[in-house]
Amino acid sequence: MPKNILFVMCDQLRHDYLGCTGHPVLKTPNIDMLAENGVRFSNAYVPAPLCGPCRMSVYTGRYPRSHGSYWNGSPLRIGEMNFGDHLNPLKMRTALCGKTHMTPDLDGMARLGIDPCSPAGQRISECGFELWDRLDGVYPAKGTRRPSHYFEYLNEKGYKGDNPWHDWANSAEGADGELKTGWFIENNDLPARIAEEDSETPYTTSRSIEFIEKNAGDSWCLHLSYIKPHWPYIVPEPYASMYGPEDVPEPNRNERERENSGPLLGAQYEKRSAKMFAREKLRDKAIPAYMGLIKQIDDQLGRVFEALKDTGQWEDTLIVFTSDHGDYFGDHWLGDKEFFHEEAVKVPLILFDPTAAADATRGSVCYELVEGIDLLPTFVDFAGGEPNYDVLEGHSLMPFLHDPKAQPVRDYAISEVDFSETYACTHLGLPVDKCRMVMVFDGRFKAVFSNANLPPVLFDLENDPKELRDIGREASSIAALAKLRAHLDEWSMAHHTSGTTPISRRIDYEDSECEIGVLIGFYDEQDVKDTPKAVHPLS
Amino acid sequence: MPKNILFVMCDQLRHDYLGCTGHPVLKTPNIDMLAENGVRFSNAYVPAPLCGPCRMSVYTGRYPRSHGSYWNGSPLRIGEMNFGDHLNPLKMRTALCGKTHMTPDLDGMARLGIDPCSPAGQRISECGFELWDRLDGVYPAKGTRRPSHYFEYLNEKGYKGDNPWHDWANSAEGADGELKTGWFIENNDLPARIAEEDSETPYTTSRSIEFIEKNAGDSWCLHLSYIKPHWPYIVPEPYASMYGPEDVPEPNRNERERENSGPLLGAQYEKRSAKMFAREKLRDKAIPAYMGLIKQIDDQLGRVFEALKDTGQWEDTLIVFTSDHGDYFGDHWLGDKEFFHEEAVKVPLILFDPTAAADATRGSVCYELVEGIDLLPTFVDFAGGEPNYDVLEGHSLMPFLHDPKAQPVRDYAISEVDFSETYACTHLGLPVDKCRMVMVFDGRFKAVFSNANLPPVLFDLENDPKELRDIGREASSIAALAKLRAHLDEWSMAHHTSGTTPISRRIDYEDSECEIGVLIGFYDEQDVKDTPKAVHPLS
Repeated sequence: MPKNILFVMCDQLRHDYLGCTGHPVLKTPNIDMLAENGVRFSNAYVPAPLCGPCRMSVYTGRYPRSHGSYWNGSPLRIGEMNFGDHLNPLKMRTALCGKTHMTPDLDGMARLGIDPCSPAGQRISECGFELWDRLDGVYPAKGTRRPSHYFEYLNEKGYKGDNPWHDWANSAEGADGELKTGWFIENNDLPARIAEEDSETPYTTSRSIEFIEKNAGDSWCLHLSYIKPHWPYIVPEPYASMYGPEDVPEPNRNERERENSGPLLGAQYEKRSAKMFAREKLRDKAIPAYMGLIKQIDDQLGRVFEALKDTGQWEDTLIVFTSDHGDYFGDHWLGDKEFFHEEAVKVPLILFDPTAAADATRGSVCYELVEGIDLLPTFVDFAGGEPNYDVLEGHSLMPFLHDPKAQPVRDYAISEVDFSETYACTHLGLPVDKCRMVMVFDGRFKAVFSNANLPPVLFDLENDPKELRDIGREASSIAALAKLRAHLDEWSMAHHTSGTTPISRRIDYEDSECEIGVLIGFYDEQDVKDTPKAVHPLS
Repeated sequence: MPKNILFVMCDQLRHDYLGCTGHPVLKTPNIDMLAENGVRFSNAYVPAPLCGPCRMSVYTGRYPRSHGSYWNGSPLRIGEMNFGDHLNPLKMRTALCGKTHMTPDLDGMARLGIDPCSPAGQRISECGFELWDRLDGVYPAKGTRRPSHYFEYLNEKGYKGDNPWHDWANSAEGADGELKTGWFIENNDLPARIAEEDSETPYTTSRSIEFIEKNAGDSWCLHLSYIKPHWPYIVPEPYASMYGPEDVPEPNRNERERENSGPLLGAQYEKRSAKMFAREKLRDKAIPAYMGLIKQIDDQLGRVFEALKDTGQWEDTLIVFTSDHGDYFGDHWLGDKEFFHEEAVKVPLILFDPTAAADATRGSVCYELVEGIDLLPTFVDFAGGEPNYDVLEGHSLMPFLHDPKAQPVRDYAISEVDFSETYACTHLGLPVDKCRMVMVFDGRFKAVFSNANLPPVLFDLENDPKELRDIGREASSIAALAKLRAHLDEWSMAHHTSGTTPISRRIDYEDSECEIGVLIGFYDEQDVKDTPKAVHPLS
């Protein structure tokens, strides 16, 4: 029997903008159906609240500090085992429809004599994905510079210009026919000037349905990776008119937050998107469009599910729904992402396993701490393989799908940001190697530590679930901080670079040396006889 | 003008077994001559007190935790920039005579489609060294399994057998002509059954002289890497009779050390070599041979220096003399290495720069903390390049050669051991991922921390220069330990995996996004105008 994985990832989807995660207005029946029949993880955290590093972590099963791609556009180091390296040996194809944000390590390839255009070079350049249809948005991925098929599709459909992605799918039209870019929040309450079926989400969906239809009978993992609801926040009709300012909740923020901020959080307020969303009324323009984009994704997923059923693959397909990070939208006086409040670092995660083994957990919610790096080991596990935990730093989530009493896989969740390429670095006057932040969250306390001796940020989510009070610099926090710091130290001291000597191959070195004739630590023949385990090749 | 580097490394040479480092008996005039004309570093520490990880660090300029080769035989991960990657682009050949302990990452090569036998594959397999004559001792390197030329040389010279390295160069003969292996300490007071000129050190020396003679006029870095005075401690005449038990100092140990030991140090006592050297009189057999081996190296270096002069290359050649780690020889009740007392972790380091720029420092001693990972950046610097500090974690030592007032390059030295493949792991009952030890030494206090919550080891070298009293579990040590722990945390939190985005290429990401048409954080056109640095490609 073939085994399939439909790995759906949205870009910038907050954890709380789905029906099944409690949004008061937005209804997402198709995604909710997955939750009703699978397991919803209510404490899923991303390895980095930022597209590129998060995705590289998800696709390698390793923390940003381990794979080294710490920022958008930072190439994934040559030699890192990628998504295909783990799944292809299990006879599972790994295909992509949509976004990865992957940037290849061209310097590394040159050093190793690998032609980026060779079959091996292309596979490495795409993180082990076979490109069914890569769509990273406005610009092709740096390095590869392959144009997206979507641009051609739009041109063929009559949407003219060099950048139809921007000029049609992500722009509106003014009263006099002038182009109004969707990048500007000012224009987010206008509909995109494109037929709904030609916009990004339906396009990527149709391409993924093509894949599903053509590959029935094979084992595959399809990464259906929607570029939305990421900026530009603009959506065509009917979604553009579906939600309005009346559907926009009050921002989660108060004045005390800004007055009380230390340098680490304070520097975040200097970001352009933060300053912008601190203004009144912007949310009323952006959030309704954002909700429309999510609703559109939900509708399109209905098409995908139908295709799985129509092609007889529904019963063989693990369906995974998640996001790469959230969006602040002015909550906590911040915009976009890149910090560690729940709005940014927590994501929706639903796994629907159609097999009978998962019947005991259907419709349940799992409250354990899980991370984006858990997905790849889960996929290997589902595909029937043994996750390579010498390289993979997460844990398979399959036990949670099969056993309502499965044990926690970790005591604390980790997420990282290196802000050396942001204005926060300049603002704080830090050298580029002192811009690392690590979040440690134990389910109650969440700390953000810096490697620049800046005071930590700390939230107590039990007493302050909305994270409105940073208690990181309060004397009463010393014990909580010490505990989280000990977790951080444990995590920091772990191997993040191993992978060449599997744990299973580790042996007693003294004995193995003996086997090849290196006899260290013996006075004489009698010593060898007195050493029970030692082999003596010279006798 | 060509620039050359003669990079001499001994294997297992203690810091205090040279004339210039104060040995009371052993005279090493050739090595001392380097110190008299160059700079001797009296506080040089290895990245790991163990051959393989130390060497991989020296050859990559990175800590073991960064390159991932944590133990002997642990392959150097594919993609790590190696010795040649840093020096070859400067038109400097990198050649090897002797030992590297390099194990190639064959799995990684297979994954990337690199044939280990192709020119690129061979270069990667040898860490960027061109093999003039690799000699790793009794067995060819795992993986490559290339036989050493030395075996052929011995056979041609009439030393018969499959393993003439062992049977002649590293064995003695009994009264009845029976073979007595040099691996056994019992036999270390006997001479090796080989003509002195055919033993390892003269062989490797002659091969290096060939290189020096044939390549005069080119720029080269020759790694003259003696496999001695590493075990087997056996040397031919006249060196075998040169030193005797009367030249062996009392061991640096006392009973209190064993009584007072915590688990981390206590587990080391369980090692075979430790138990063996705890016995009486073994030192009297091994150490005189060890001294003979060192004396032989010193004599052979005289030949090399003559060759440099004879070929007119003396004035163009930076000469570096060091070791990969020391040897306990029963000091502190330990044998071999793998822990962090000065006997194991401190090495001799002398740099002789023949150019006029170094005249101000000739014959001086530098007391600053330096590390084995400083060598590669020093070589790049000497060769006229800009050390790539995105990858290299050490610091060029050239300032110390040119300026008597050069500033320290670090506040603390780091060394690491992962003992998951040793009996200490079994003895302590630890999982293999909890066997990491890191030494932090600030010039006075030296701590060894574990990632298994074992109490740290601490020595105060100001009040206890012989490191006979572990004060790691004493209440009065809290402040010193906290300071060293803060250093460890800073070091642990640093990037150890980056290298794909050079610091010089790091830019303000918000602006760079704008340049490619990603306009995040703008409400309208006015916002763009109000943002001084932003580029606006759509206008």
